[in-house]
Amino acid sequence: MPSRFRHAALVGKYQAHGMRGVLDDIAQFLERQGVEVSIEAETALATGLAGYPALTPRDIGARCDLAIVVGGDGTMLGMARQLARHGVPLVGINQGRLGFITDVPVKAFQETLAPMIAGDYEEEHRALLEGAVWRDGRAIYEGFAVNDVVVSRGGTSSMVELKIDIGEQFVANLRADGVIIAGPTGSTAYALSAGGPILHPGIAGWVLVPIAPHDLSNRPIVLPDSVEVSIEIVAGRDASVNFDMQSLASLLHGDRIAVRRSAHQVRFLHPLGWSYYATLRRKLHWNAGTA
Amino acid sequence: MPSRFRHAALVGKYQAHGMRGVLDDIAQFLERQGVEVSIEAETALATGLAGYPALTPRDIGARCDLAIVVGGDGTMLGMARQLARHGVPLVGINQGRLGFITDVPVKAFQETLAPMIAGDYEEEHRALLEGAVWRDGRAIYEGFAVNDVVVSRGGTSSMVELKIDIGEQFVANLRADGVIIAGPTGSTAYALSAGGPILHPGIAGWVLVPIAPHDLSNRPIVLPDSVEVSIEIVAGRDASVNFDMQSLASLLHGDRIAVRRSAHQVRFLHPLGWSYYATLRRKLHWNAGTA
Amino acid sequence: MPSRFRHAALVGKYQAHGMRGVLDDIAQFLERQGVEVSIEAETALATGLAGYPALTPRDIGARCDLAIVVGGDGTMLGMARQLARHGVPLVGINQGRLGFITDVPVKAFQETLAPMIAGDYEEEHRALLEGAVWRDGRAIYEGFAVNDVVVSRGGTSSMVELKIDIGEQFVANLRADGVIIAGPTGSTAYALSAGGPILHPGIAGWVLVPIAPHDLSNRPIVLPDSVEVSIEIVAGRDASVNFDMQSLASLLHGDRIAVRRSAHQVRFLHPLGWSYYATLRRKLHWNAGTA
Amino acid sequence: MPSRFRHAALVGKYQAHGMRGVLDDIAQFLERQGVEVSIEAETALATGLAGYPALTPRDIGARCDLAIVVGGDGTMLGMARQLARHGVPLVGINQGRLGFITDVPVKAFQETLAPMIAGDYEEEHRALLEGAVWRDGRAIYEGFAVNDVVVSRGGTSSMVELKIDIGEQFVANLRADGVIIAGPTGSTAYALSAGGPILHPGIAGWVLVPIAPHDLSNRPIVLPDSVEVSIEIVAGRDASVNFDMQSLASLLHGDRIAVRRSAHQVRFLHPLGWSYYATLRRKLHWNAGTA
Repeated sequence: MPSRFRHAALVGKYQAHGMRGVLDDIAQFLERQGVEVSIEAETALATGLAGYPALTPRDIGARCDLAIVVGGDGTMLGMARQLARHGVPLVGINQGRLGFITDVPVKAFQETLAPMIAGDYEEEHRALLEGAVWRDGRAIYEGFAVNDVVVSRGGTSSMVELKIDIGEQFVANLRADGVIIAGPTGSTAYALSAGGPILHPGIAGWVLVPIAPHDLSNRPIVLPDSVEVSIEIVAGRDASVNFDMQSLASLLHGDRIAVRRSAHQVRFLHPLGWSYYATLRRKLHWNAGTA
Repeated sequence: MPSRFRHAALVGKYQAHGMRGVLDDIAQFLERQGVEVSIEAETALATGLAGYPALTPRDIGARCDLAIVVGGDGTMLGMARQLARHGVPLVGINQGRLGFITDVPVKAFQETLAPMIAGDYEEEHRALLEGAVWRDGRAIYEGFAVNDVVVSRGGTSSMVELKIDIGEQFVANLRADGVIIAGPTGSTAYALSAGGPILHPGIAGWVLVPIAPHDLSNRPIVLPDSVEVSIEIVAGRDASVNFDMQSLASLLHGDRIAVRRSAHQVRFLHPLGWSYYATLRRKLHWNAGTA
Repeated sequence: MPSRFRHAALVGKYQAHGMRGVLDDIAQFLERQGVEVSIEAETALATGLAGYPALTPRDIGARCDLAIVVGGDGTMLGMARQLARHGVPLVGINQGRLGFITDVPVKAFQETLAPMIAGDYEEEHRALLEGAVWRDGRAIYEGFAVNDVVVSRGGTSSMVELKIDIGEQFVANLRADGVIIAGPTGSTAYALSAGGPILHPGIAGWVLVPIAPHDLSNRPIVLPDSVEVSIEIVAGRDASVNFDMQSLASLLHGDRIAVRRSAHQVRFLHPLGWSYYATLRRKLHWNAGTA
Repeated sequence: MPSRFRHAALVGKYQAHGMRGVLDDIAQFLERQGVEVSIEAETALATGLAGYPALTPRDIGARCDLAIVVGGDGTMLGMARQLARHGVPLVGINQGRLGFITDVPVKAFQETLAPMIAGDYEEEHRALLEGAVWRDGRAIYEGFAVNDVVVSRGGTSSMVELKIDIGEQFVANLRADGVIIAGPTGSTAYALSAGGPILHPGIAGWVLVPIAPHDLSNRPIVLPDSVEVSIEIVAGRDASVNFDMQSLASLLHGDRIAVRRSAHQVRFLHPLGWSYYATLRRKLHWNAGTA
């Protein structure tokens, strides 16, 4: 069966033990399937894996039609964020416990990848958040996030006060440790720890989750992702904003974080038969009962 | 300015003190605006208000193009459920504290209703849930809900076990006091008390909220409302199901409650300038800050 | 080494498969240790295990100085409740997953029980709750609970309103699905599912946990167990009260449930080296980290 | 009626408008009751209130038998922490909304204070937390807290991992934004926002509340305050510890925070008829119902 994909990039969590051998095995397997193989540049450098062209994420975006990531959800999210604007789909291979979005076990990569490469897979699109920090009328920072945008108090500060607007409408002033804006992908990460609900990937929305709010009735709220969310720092020392853990610290009063849905989205490929709910059951240790 | 509406039905929470006088005032005001007025039949009976045709909800659906409800959110929801299939819009007038969906204060009904009747209003559509209870292959009960469908344990039972499917996919077996399925309207009612998030009315989804789940990781989940939710009674004595508080008790093991989005929806009319977020701030006592 | 105990009673979860053989093995082992053995009467009847005297719980209380329960936490709690007033200590043997209070695995019962019978064990005391339902000045029901006393709404009712007093002081009127009063033992059961904290057994207190309270600020509260808690049914149809799952239904408005600490307490024996926190880690799947 | 107190110190939230006049009124009132009056030194400096001796907190501890604090809960807590070792009782006068522990309204200070000064009051003792930060076998920081001790992640870090021991026993490794240790006084402050229960002042315990824990089953736990709680920084950048908001930042891996109950305690005086539950109802907006 001819390959559905022409040129795959391999990305590896370089610190992990035995990564070089695993990547080499996967590369050789792909070539046997008739797929051209490149290695992401930092992966090549860190593992010393030679014999394949080394490409930057930008080059991968321009030249590859598939990215195969070996590692955990964090590695996968980082690459997904960089490839989203290029529309390159990603497959996640996990060496340890399967993640929410890395669902191919390394031990079964051949039998799992073979049909996927031949075109038998399920494709899933996830929203990408796009945000900017505004100060004195200028955007001083811009970033993307697959999981979440988090505004939070300084480490030794007691609280931030945030003015929240949705589109043109004032929502509330929030006094809390901070606030999380997450789409479906991020709803099972930090937002869940802070008391947010799970959002099914089919929900075109995001959830605002206050972190330890002073006001007990400041509950998580799910909003359509068609509107911009604006968060202004009203009070509190040394607040910061994180886009998927990439931080901008030392925010000033009056700084405003604007978050909206990106025109781009992340493309994940899963094996046929993949089930979102099975992933939830496995990751959240839900009792699957007798059924 | 000519009226945008031709024929309004008046509905009143008949037990309330002074209801007859209030309804009469509103009726006379509407007639002065050139609107024909009828009274909902039970309202007429309970208040003794004569001089206007008495119509059943079915007749209101067939003949009126506006329903004005005087009372609280509960009265409004009950009428909304009955009028949804007829597409008649509703306005809510409140004699006491304003509700989530009854936002015209009785003291200001003239100045608020006048522009609305002339066509200056904001129209909002809310999803309607439609459900059935299946036993041995037959639907033994069918109902509608604006707020929520609730499956819960019997009063003296310790727990129910529920098998939950979404569309064709198995989600989980849930051991809990029960589960709530709510759309945006119901998300600020019982579902909120049980730990669910607030859903903005623009979200085409509903939230499943487990009530006191045995498994601490059984968290609320927000789902697209395009799929059917199925809940089967697996274990537990004397479980019951409620559609907006209309109950069917003594469910049997194997009984299955199927819930989906109705083709009909509820139409609410609000005064111009109405703000969903202002309603949240007011009802949930959110700090409005200094802004 | 001579036995510290003279006469042990064996109690078994009679429905369980293979119970008779297990009980017989334990009985013979005890006799070899020089301990006289009796069988709880219903256990004897259900398993057909003959050759040992059959005693009612009351007789066990009068004549035995140890009760060995084979089963889960539920079986253990039931027997603990009956033996508390007699001061007979209990050991729990579990055939499946260990419970919060049944911590001897059946496969290792010999090596675990031998030192315990010789006097090497840790003894732990747990509070017993004692309650009554008052109607028209008379106590119409009295009961004991090791886990919890629960007042809850009827199965098809929407809510109860409860007036809560602590000692002579009015606390609040609570509108909710109900309220749970639990001591440390019950704090890891239903109360935890409803959002309550864990109470260490060394805390001389109980926790009041509102179930799905209408008011979001009605949070769980931990109280000294030296005062009486009084809960009066103010509104709501068909409310019920449960003492460790033994129910009294159809409560009337004005009925009052009074709960206080019993003068008796439950005595549990654990193997040396038993750790309360290890039990929490195991049962709640807490990450034990690398330490 | 002769005064029960001999020498009162006045403390004022010096930034507040009109503070000088209020303090002068109270001072003159006290003198008319036969009470000697001093002013806390910083209060005297900030308000310019002359004519009374200015005393440092240490001097107040040595020479006064009453401290009257005008301000909010924060001001009250700060002075309580400093006076605890000297056993001087405090009364709180509030200029705005009453607090949890400042319960004399400024407008009624004369009629409220007069009987208190004559000896008609309710005295309440609150636990004081005492903690130290250990590094390489040395205590590098020591502090006291009336509300809480908080260990938390750095502002731009994603998480801390904390190893928690109680006395000699390992409890768990916690991955979270941080953890709060609070006694009854602090249980209605930050700990409540993070999901903790309310602890009645009669509970000889404290609550450990994980902040946004990664593990959903890491629930708040209430512990006897007779044991030491130890928290070791295992992972995470730039963690910090706060004792009632006094911070030590830049904690290192291996640093250990040890918290125990102080031998000293805080003494609050309330007007006769003061009710803890009435304070909860007022501050948490609990519905007091019809009773």
